[in-house]
Amino acid sequence: MKRRKLGRGVSIVAAGMSSFGVFPGKVSRDLFLDAYLEMIGCVDRGIDPKDIEAIYLGNYSSDIFEGQGHTAPIVADWIGLTPRAAVRIEDACASSGVAFRQAVLAVASGAYDIVLAGGMEKMTNLPTEKVTDALATAGDMMFEIPAGFTFPSFYAVMATAYASRYNVGLEFLKHVTIKNHNNGSLNPKAQFGQKISDLMEAKKKAAAAKGKPVPEWSDEMAFLADERANPTIAWPLQLFDCSPISDGAAAVLVVSDEIARSLTDTPIHIIGTGQASDGALHARKELTSIASARLAVEEAYTMAGIGPKDVDLAEVHDCFTIAEVIATEDLGFFPVGEGCRAVVEGKTRRDGGKPINTSGGLKSKGHPVGASGAGQVVEIWKQLRGVAGERQVDGGPSIGLTHNVGGTGQTTVVNIFERK
Amino acid sequence: MKRRKLGRGVSIVAAGMSSFGVFPGKVSRDLFLDAYLEMIGCVDRGIDPKDIEAIYLGNYSSDIFEGQGHTAPIVADWIGLTPRAAVRIEDACASSGVAFRQAVLAVASGAYDIVLAGGMEKMTNLPTEKVTDALATAGDMMFEIPAGFTFPSFYAVMATAYASRYNVGLEFLKHVTIKNHNNGSLNPKAQFGQKISDLMEAKKKAAAAKGKPVPEWSDEMAFLADERANPTIAWPLQLFDCSPISDGAAAVLVVSDEIARSLTDTPIHIIGTGQASDGALHARKELTSIASARLAVEEAYTMAGIGPKDVDLAEVHDCFTIAEVIATEDLGFFPVGEGCRAVVEGKTRRDGGKPINTSGGLKSKGHPVGASGAGQVVEIWKQLRGVAGERQVDGGPSIGLTHNVGGTGQTTVVNIFERK
Repeated sequence: MKRRKLGRGVSIVAAGMSSFGVFPGKVSRDLFLDAYLEMIGCVDRGIDPKDIEAIYLGNYSSDIFEGQGHTAPIVADWIGLTPRAAVRIEDACASSGVAFRQAVLAVASGAYDIVLAGGMEKMTNLPTEKVTDALATAGDMMFEIPAGFTFPSFYAVMATAYASRYNVGLEFLKHVTIKNHNNGSLNPKAQFGQKISDLMEAKKKAAAAKGKPVPEWSDEMAFLADERANPTIAWPLQLFDCSPISDGAAAVLVVSDEIARSLTDTPIHIIGTGQASDGALHARKELTSIASARLAVEEAYTMAGIGPKDVDLAEVHDCFTIAEVIATEDLGFFPVGEGCRAVVEGKTRRDGGKPINTSGGLKSKGHPVGASGAGQVVEIWKQLRGVAGERQVDGGPSIGLTHNVGGTGQTTVVNIFERK
Repeated sequence: MKRRKLGRGVSIVAAGMSSFGVFPGKVSRDLFLDAYLEMIGCVDRGIDPKDIEAIYLGNYSSDIFEGQGHTAPIVADWIGLTPRAAVRIEDACASSGVAFRQAVLAVASGAYDIVLAGGMEKMTNLPTEKVTDALATAGDMMFEIPAGFTFPSFYAVMATAYASRYNVGLEFLKHVTIKNHNNGSLNPKAQFGQKISDLMEAKKKAAAAKGKPVPEWSDEMAFLADERANPTIAWPLQLFDCSPISDGAAAVLVVSDEIARSLTDTPIHIIGTGQASDGALHARKELTSIASARLAVEEAYTMAGIGPKDVDLAEVHDCFTIAEVIATEDLGFFPVGEGCRAVVEGKTRRDGGKPINTSGGLKSKGHPVGASGAGQVVEIWKQLRGVAGERQVDGGPSIGLTHNVGGTGQTTVVNIFERK
């Protein structure tokens, strides 16, 4: 693959996010304000917001969720950045990963020195079935949606294909759930901050308190295997295989390397970025790997001059548990067909050698779709800066990666970061 | 204003568009294919589509109009560009003007050498009132839409403010209509390819044929003044003050200057680009000028090192007739308050010294909102290349400008082009 070189170096100097969850009293612009204020507050040497020259905002569909289009200038105005250029990017659940990448390219082009990149989504004011319909528009409305597909069913197809191709049971998916909830329990911004074991004990206590028979779950795996605790959504995917419906926002300050030096002693450099597309799932030959992910990461690795072994930790797009396992293979962290074993063996835990989704991932942290890609960048920024609190990965990680997927992989965008 | 300089030069080497109009048998991806094929066919020395590295697609709301989100990779796949990076940009009716600008920045950044920029919208499969609702989401859903505003009424407010501030009648608006229909009658891709005089004669004939009294319209102005021919939509704006609901697409090939030389002897250089945002209309102090337009054009002029006198012709955002007059003032072509006189005096006709909307503008050519900005670029490309057919401006114009507005000016993007 051709090595692309950007015109100049680009770094992150600040990052922030709102809590992810269900916030009935807030519209999306309020959530973005939360993220923005946290971001502004963590620029080491401070910054005058007037110096921000543009905003790149990922948003999947405030149009449908809130009846609000043209969200970029609406948000720019709400946070006080008018009259700066405001660009909304929509690439389904990869919207803010792509928005971040476009911010990087805009700074590299010389058009801007200081750019705000981020994303937001307010999903919970619609009933669940309407949210499912809104998300389904990221499939193909001519060839997939009329056939009855929704996103849980798309990823269910991938899960069964994976099990069939590699002749494995699907218990490994539950290890993704358990790991990501363990991580999320250490993230105060996570929508679901409980370990699966805590949820299990709480259910037992609740049953006892009501005088009902207390379920005899021996461990988390038994809990997740029980349809009463973890009902099937789209076979073989169960409730705890699915990321939630969420409200949230995330924001990152993207600047030229030159500017970065004046704002902090610890910039996080963007050393690689890549993006690719694919046709919709119905037309693919391959269901157990996402071609756009393989191409996007190859582009990013080539630009960075590194390979998968050099990556200390990654935030990957675990919209469903199967998606995380496939991602760890597409990124080259594990051989094809072996991602399932890696998670069971604990290799992707915080202390496992290749930590994946230390934030809790979309599964536990939450998945406000337009904010998720930028949320991943926030986590990598925290980890590389060493400010991830209780979930901080040991050993001073220096290279982190984000992998953000739109739809079933019609878009994947990968960004690679280094603390030098 | 700080002069921004891009990292390297960027040019257009091809442009194409679908017909604009009402196409019940086509979805938006079909329309984009029409535009794309015309574009590919007009690269002087030919190009292998595989050499296109990314697509930047402006689209306002296929989500609402067609139930299709994530439109960029859908389109990339439909036209055979998978697995290239596909980015959708949404900035309301400025979506594809902004998409074009992002394509320029992406090439300037070094990330890509050859990029497809364009836009599309398929609006006519919804009933008019639903289209009006969909467009209204580009206003502010918290402070404007609940008060009953729609886009005709937003611009009606600007029209009455203009008349009041400058103490003029609003007959000048009819001159915009007449001029743009005259231009559109020479554009085979226009949705309304009839002069107002032709429409008037047709109505007279139709009345006579039915044995009804034939209206005694003395000229086009009398025709447009008659509520029977030109009913009020949102006072003072009448039907012929409003751009139509349209289907259509446009596509432009954006490349580095270096690549351009290998593809054509006549590249059109992008010498200036600018973008700015503003709050929604309800919160503005100024109703007779669009602040984001003034800032965007200042940025573009500064980058280009030129002023309004150097511009040979422009495509401006005439979503409503009043918008064109305000645009010609915001761009510095005429002093504030004198745009109304300029159009009456014919200064903005093809032979008037400062030709505006030679394509017919959104008014006559049509306004498939996500395609309109890219459609403007197509017209400037044709005019500067001297291939605009019957509507070609005399004298070999060398500098052209596009002015594309989102909403009521929450976004404006300006691009300036030169044939050197």
